[in-house]
Amino acid sequence: MRFLEKLEKLAKKNKSLVCLGLDSDIEKIPKNFQNNRNKPIQFLFNKSIIDRTFSYVCSYKFNVAFYYAIGLKGLQSLKLTIDYLKKNHPEIPVIVDAKIGDINNTNKAYAQFIFDYLGADGVTVNPYLGEESLRPFLVRKDKGIIVISKTSNPGAQELQNLPLEIKDDSLRKKMKEKIPLYQYIVYQVVYKWNKNKNCLLVVGATYPNELKEIRRMVGDQFWFLVPGIGAQGGDLEATVKAGLNRQGNGLIIHSSRAIIYDINPQKQVLKLKKEINKLISSYIIT
Amino acid sequence: MRFLEKLEKLAKKNKSLVCLGLDSDIEKIPKNFQNNRNKPIQFLFNKSIIDRTFSYVCSYKFNVAFYYAIGLKGLQSLKLTIDYLKKNHPEIPVIVDAKIGDINNTNKAYAQFIFDYLGADGVTVNPYLGEESLRPFLVRKDKGIIVISKTSNPGAQELQNLPLEIKDDSLRKKMKEKIPLYQYIVYQVVYKWNKNKNCLLVVGATYPNELKEIRRMVGDQFWFLVPGIGAQGGDLEATVKAGLNRQGNGLIIHSSRAIIYDINPQKQVLKLKKEINKLISSYIIT
Repeated sequence: MRFLEKLEKLAKKNKSLVCLGLDSDIEKIPKNFQNNRNKPIQFLFNKSIIDRTFSYVCSYKFNVAFYYAIGLKGLQSLKLTIDYLKKNHPEIPVIVDAKIGDINNTNKAYAQFIFDYLGADGVTVNPYLGEESLRPFLVRKDKGIIVISKTSNPGAQELQNLPLEIKDDSLRKKMKEKIPLYQYIVYQVVYKWNKNKNCLLVVGATYPNELKEIRRMVGDQFWFLVPGIGAQGGDLEATVKAGLNRQGNGLIIHSSRAIIYDINPQKQVLKLKKEINKLISSYIIT
Repeated sequence: MRFLEKLEKLAKKNKSLVCLGLDSDIEKIPKNFQNNRNKPIQFLFNKSIIDRTFSYVCSYKFNVAFYYAIGLKGLQSLKLTIDYLKKNHPEIPVIVDAKIGDINNTNKAYAQFIFDYLGADGVTVNPYLGEESLRPFLVRKDKGIIVISKTSNPGAQELQNLPLEIKDDSLRKKMKEKIPLYQYIVYQVVYKWNKNKNCLLVVGATYPNELKEIRRMVGDQFWFLVPGIGAQGGDLEATVKAGLNRQGNGLIIHSSRAIIYDINPQKQVLKLKKEINKLISSYIIT
């Protein structure tokens, strides 16, 4: 099944747009998991979260950095967790967040790691090296290729909002005379990189104006992975209002720290799911 | 010792600007290393290369993708190789090529992996999320933070050469009215991100005109990591001519595939070193 198909199916079944981030920082994992440092602590922690949340999410996302941080044991935990998901919950899309951006030959090795070794369904990639570099990902029709455009960090504007003079006639008709870099990337992805209809975009919840503009630009068909609510300060209501499409979906709303380290992650993920659904009901009047 | 100090010292001692890329693709490693798939094949291969080349390089570079590609065994080989270098050749700078670009909190985990777990001296990073995101790297005064600006891949111009309208008055005095994105990044790095004097730039050998322009912009003090000669088609003479500073250095010239899979890697690395030094002699007239 293709990534977007799998995602839409589960979002519908679980009535959820919540993407739970298993960005499990070994230093923040509760003490009761830390008794035996020889065990794959991050996996044991992840398993306990998955077992309590799998009915309430549309996907799980893993930022590889928190696993690499402790080396071999971290990578082992990441692999064990994804294996566990594939075995017990094969219907849940697994996104690996690695923001990869290298040359074509190297990206082949990354695609092998992310899709073939880890078995992920989707991956985040960096656009800076251009479409040609990303082909080893873009050719994978069944996978979700999630291109970062406007990221959630406070300093994102430094390069992403630089004003461009566009000379590309095929695109100029569709855009204003001068546009910021992140919007140019959105156009490249939507009109040129998405030949296999497997692209999505990363748009940070901390920038609802930009999110709204991107939704206006791409129409209702595109899905966005939206990090930044919770610990990073993005406002949920503004996010849903700005980013929702007219079908009442199109958003994969990511949260991690505010849920996984809570004493009751099940309650927190359910609360977020319900808040989102309440907002959707109020904005979608059919 | 700081990265640049260590690099300059070894480049002088070994009379070499060659950075040997141990981008050891398991599928391309000679058959005699492949007898026992349970052993860390990439490490054994790397060790054999290091033992024959350590006197002829200014640094070793590891692109992590080729290790991740096979999962745990790959990461194990990467760690073993860097440990071997630290123990036997602590004077050689180790660069980890991971082109990292994530938010600040996540980059802390990456810095922990690259510098504290692997023990690397330098790392390549992606500028797209801006200076604020990269602070966990930039604060490490003793490390080399190598920012990609113009990459070596054939499709690099898609975003990197986009024309910008600059509104930043502190920079506008130094630059032409309209400049391509990769040059803007160069200015940001040189004038704003390099507070700890630990930044370098990645500039592909396949774009000698851009390399020349960047050298003109930044003066003699900056060092560039230059991939793209050999298998990617970059011309060595054009590279040295365009990128050398007036001290006859400032370039870390990377080669991997053309050397490490050769039947005689020692001969190939020595040949490259000599070719570079001959070119340097002909361009530096003191």
